[in-house]
Amino acid sequence: MSLDLWYWPGIPGRGEFIRLPLEAAGVPYRDAAQEDGVEALLADMEARGPGAVFAPPYVAEGDFTIAQTAHILAWLADRHGFGADDLTTDLRLIQLQLTVMDIVDEAHAVHHPISGSLYYHEQKAEAARRAVDFRNSRIPKFLDHFEAAVAQGDGPFLLGERWSYIDTSLFQLIEGLRYAFPRRMAALAGDYPCLGRLHEAVAALDGLADYLSSSRRPTFSEDGIFRHYPELDPA
Amino acid sequence: MSLDLWYWPGIPGRGEFIRLPLEAAGVPYRDAAQEDGVEALLADMEARGPGAVFAPPYVAEGDFTIAQTAHILAWLADRHGFGADDLTTDLRLIQLQLTVMDIVDEAHAVHHPISGSLYYHEQKAEAARRAVDFRNSRIPKFLDHFEAAVAQGDGPFLLGERWSYIDTSLFQLIEGLRYAFPRRMAALAGDYPCLGRLHEAVAALDGLADYLSSSRRPTFSEDGIFRHYPELDPA
Repeated sequence: MSLDLWYWPGIPGRGEFIRLPLEAAGVPYRDAAQEDGVEALLADMEARGPGAVFAPPYVAEGDFTIAQTAHILAWLADRHGFGADDLTTDLRLIQLQLTVMDIVDEAHAVHHPISGSLYYHEQKAEAARRAVDFRNSRIPKFLDHFEAAVAQGDGPFLLGERWSYIDTSLFQLIEGLRYAFPRRMAALAGDYPCLGRLHEAVAALDGLADYLSSSRRPTFSEDGIFRHYPELDPA
Repeated sequence: MSLDLWYWPGIPGRGEFIRLPLEAAGVPYRDAAQEDGVEALLADMEARGPGAVFAPPYVAEGDFTIAQTAHILAWLADRHGFGADDLTTDLRLIQLQLTVMDIVDEAHAVHHPISGSLYYHEQKAEAARRAVDFRNSRIPKFLDHFEAAVAQGDGPFLLGERWSYIDTSLFQLIEGLRYAFPRRMAALAGDYPCLGRLHEAVAALDGLADYLSSSRRPTFSEDGIFRHYPELDPA
């Protein structure tokens, strides 16, 4: 039975947090909506019934479905060996991944503080106000936390020499923040040596380097979660 | 070793999602910050180290800590038997609980759309705009999903006759939404018969009825996540 990932095509978004460890671990999967389109995604979600999936991403294997990014990752890690293989440490990875998802939510809310169903240009004034707090307080608060977590080990990964899905997630978070807030992230870079080293080590992983330079990797854009609006990242 | 729950004292917030199943199952725990105060909470968090806990609630047992509400619940359910005792169903409960936490985040963002570190009166105009979308689109979208999930069984609980932590969470979500948006929730009540029945069944659980009427249960107020500002819930 094929392992199908369903996520909005054309953007990295939350789906990319699932793709990265699958690619790094060489797990076969079908990127279903990238292949079949958004209509197929909507039809698949509907066919699974109204209580099955609230929103993409979800992963399906026959009739079995699992949604919520951090939850999917914990389930996949257990099956495919990119977790910690130790209960206490796996609990810690799940907690960190949920915290990654929290800042991902906030990164989206920066440009959509009023509603996800309005355009950015309909909430630009509010976004400019929200971006101040996100840049000045929230980015450092989250990155301090992740830096401290990684600094507890010998690196380059959270678990040391062995990569796990929290590393691919922190990599993708840093990629997204650098895309959306290049000035702010450049100013902060020196404060996060462990995260910087982790980011480089993930990019160099066997199995991931090819994917990262392939056309299969969706690029950041102003349709996604991490968006670069220069007015939200002033000098 | 005592099981300590640490959460901001004086508000139900995310901590209440942890308290309810512990109370319903009769699990002994110490409501640490309610007993010792907010300074003790801050000191405990700091003592656990900078990468240990991003934000309350967390549960501690000696040196072991676990944070993130949905994650804490899955861990406690496994230990104390208020989950499903079946892997596929437990995965489903976790997914639903994460979706409950998503609407809890959104309920907070209604009155704090710009920043959690500003007062409501500093973001009232933006809150009024955000509340329109939350009332009209987000509340029904989430409740439709939860209603459909509960309607798949024979009730009154998600798993039928047996309660699990998703029931106490849906109960608390409904309590919070009714407090914050009484007009909107009254208008919608007829659309959600399964959730209404579930709410009544949870309130009547042995072990919970006493707690709900006790002084230990924190009451909703305009310091918490679910806040009643009449201007955000117009006729």
